[in-house]
Amino acid sequence: MSELPASVRIREVGPRDGFQNEPEVLPTDVKVRLIELLAASGVRRIELTSFVRPDVIPQLADADAVLERVRLPADVSASVLIPNERGLERALAHRERFSEINGFLSASETHNQHNVGRSVGESIAGLERTFARAEREGLRCEAVISTSFGCPYEGRVPADSVLEIARRLVAAGAQEVGFGDTTGMANPRQVRDFFAQARAELPAEVELTAHFHNTRGQGLANVLAALEAGVCSFESSFGELGGCPVPAGATGNIASEDLVSMLHEMGIATGIDLPALVAAARAAQEALGRKLTSHLLSAGPIDWR
Amino acid sequence: MSELPASVRIREVGPRDGFQNEPEVLPTDVKVRLIELLAASGVRRIELTSFVRPDVIPQLADADAVLERVRLPADVSASVLIPNERGLERALAHRERFSEINGFLSASETHNQHNVGRSVGESIAGLERTFARAEREGLRCEAVISTSFGCPYEGRVPADSVLEIARRLVAAGAQEVGFGDTTGMANPRQVRDFFAQARAELPAEVELTAHFHNTRGQGLANVLAALEAGVCSFESSFGELGGCPVPAGATGNIASEDLVSMLHEMGIATGIDLPALVAAARAAQEALGRKLTSHLLSAGPIDWR
Repeated sequence: MSELPASVRIREVGPRDGFQNEPEVLPTDVKVRLIELLAASGVRRIELTSFVRPDVIPQLADADAVLERVRLPADVSASVLIPNERGLERALAHRERFSEINGFLSASETHNQHNVGRSVGESIAGLERTFARAEREGLRCEAVISTSFGCPYEGRVPADSVLEIARRLVAAGAQEVGFGDTTGMANPRQVRDFFAQARAELPAEVELTAHFHNTRGQGLANVLAALEAGVCSFESSFGELGGCPVPAGATGNIASEDLVSMLHEMGIATGIDLPALVAAARAAQEALGRKLTSHLLSAGPIDWR
Repeated sequence: MSELPASVRIREVGPRDGFQNEPEVLPTDVKVRLIELLAASGVRRIELTSFVRPDVIPQLADADAVLERVRLPADVSASVLIPNERGLERALAHRERFSEINGFLSASETHNQHNVGRSVGESIAGLERTFARAEREGLRCEAVISTSFGCPYEGRVPADSVLEIARRLVAAGAQEVGFGDTTGMANPRQVRDFFAQARAELPAEVELTAHFHNTRGQGLANVLAALEAGVCSFESSFGELGGCPVPAGATGNIASEDLVSMLHEMGIATGIDLPALVAAARAAQEALGRKLTSHLLSAGPIDWR
């Protein structure tokens, strides 16, 4: 495995993806404390919140307050998930508090309709306007393409279709494209083939990010396959929070601490202090008052004596 | 990944490793029913029980009855875990009911002392006698080497030490060597390097089997690395039962149904009907009266429409 990268970048999505999927609304001061614990552990990319409609997602209704209150080291890249142009305008009231936006759509028509009530073409058009506005503000744009490896409504999603969407979003200004395995349908062979094709077909300066779910226990195997295909950027969630719990009861995002443990054991640097990251996940577990499902929360980091 | 095998062999260890680690003693008729469900799902190698001391491990005190009562298709290879020569003599009372034995020791002195109260050298000498006797009975011998990838007491275990033990057990008659990641310390880079060395140094006719734990969520990533190193034989446990829950609360064996799901999605054949295997795990869950931790039990097989 000499071809593996020496280091990778990790974007922590728990404060957005995780807190959004909790049944209870977490108090803003708890969110701020947990985000600051994540930053203190060495995490250098954090998706802080999202400017979605507060009546639809009350869990993130405090997006303004989170952005204003959280104190982060200068080298942390903070991002916000932006559903549409209106959300971007709301976020821009706090322009100095973040440097990246994450815009999203699904690769499959049916999932996109269920998720945002638009066609894929309408979502692309919206992202073109959103990214143009964000670029004028000096923001870095990531496009996240959900259901890139399979759709619970449509089944197989052709890689060519996903990459055609990626090309259009890169042309619209995305400097990074995240490919999401939204309901855990990806397998390692598919992942390696997909990212080999993506790397060959998309401009070299575009950062390719893998966003895997552990729905069927295969999340870290897919990470290994992506590493072998040259992927150096991953998204994950501390405590294994959030993700898309479909089917009901299934786990979602890969756990940040499980990911970091495997990478460090393989000699791949992340810049993160693993015990401090586990402590942040434990603080989330205590704040939420229920047992979270990451493996490191039970097993702890390996003690090599 | 063109170098991946087209098919693999899977030994189901739940009826021994899983039932042994349950706090309650399962009734024999429940064990027999679950084993027969596993066989009906297409599993073709099953570790049925172990002839350990019934006062020490009451969970397996019905080893004689399990062997006598279970009805298996003719093409199922049944095996029993044998702790020592005395255990083998007890098993031989049912010689026609199984075709393979699994003998075990640890690669690290401290773990072997804690586990069986002997030095590694004493365990090797015992296995030499046990395998010699088993060979005379026409039984196939697997040697299982625990802590092959790390020891909770000693830390790193040199691959050279593990392979020296393997060579001695092959000389003693082992036709198969299983390498156990007993407390989930292995990582994919280590696994690929280890099995590449093992394949190069051990006789080509010896079957190399990987026995991984999912203690830190990395079990299936290690399977992928082993596949890439040419490994075609794995051990796993339905429902994610059993294994070595160290530290307390941690998960143990990789789940058979999660393993089979990933392999099938990658186009690697196992001969197993995945929905039937999940049904067997669900029957175990119902018999044990608690939620088991495999991912497929929650998420189910992928529905590709």
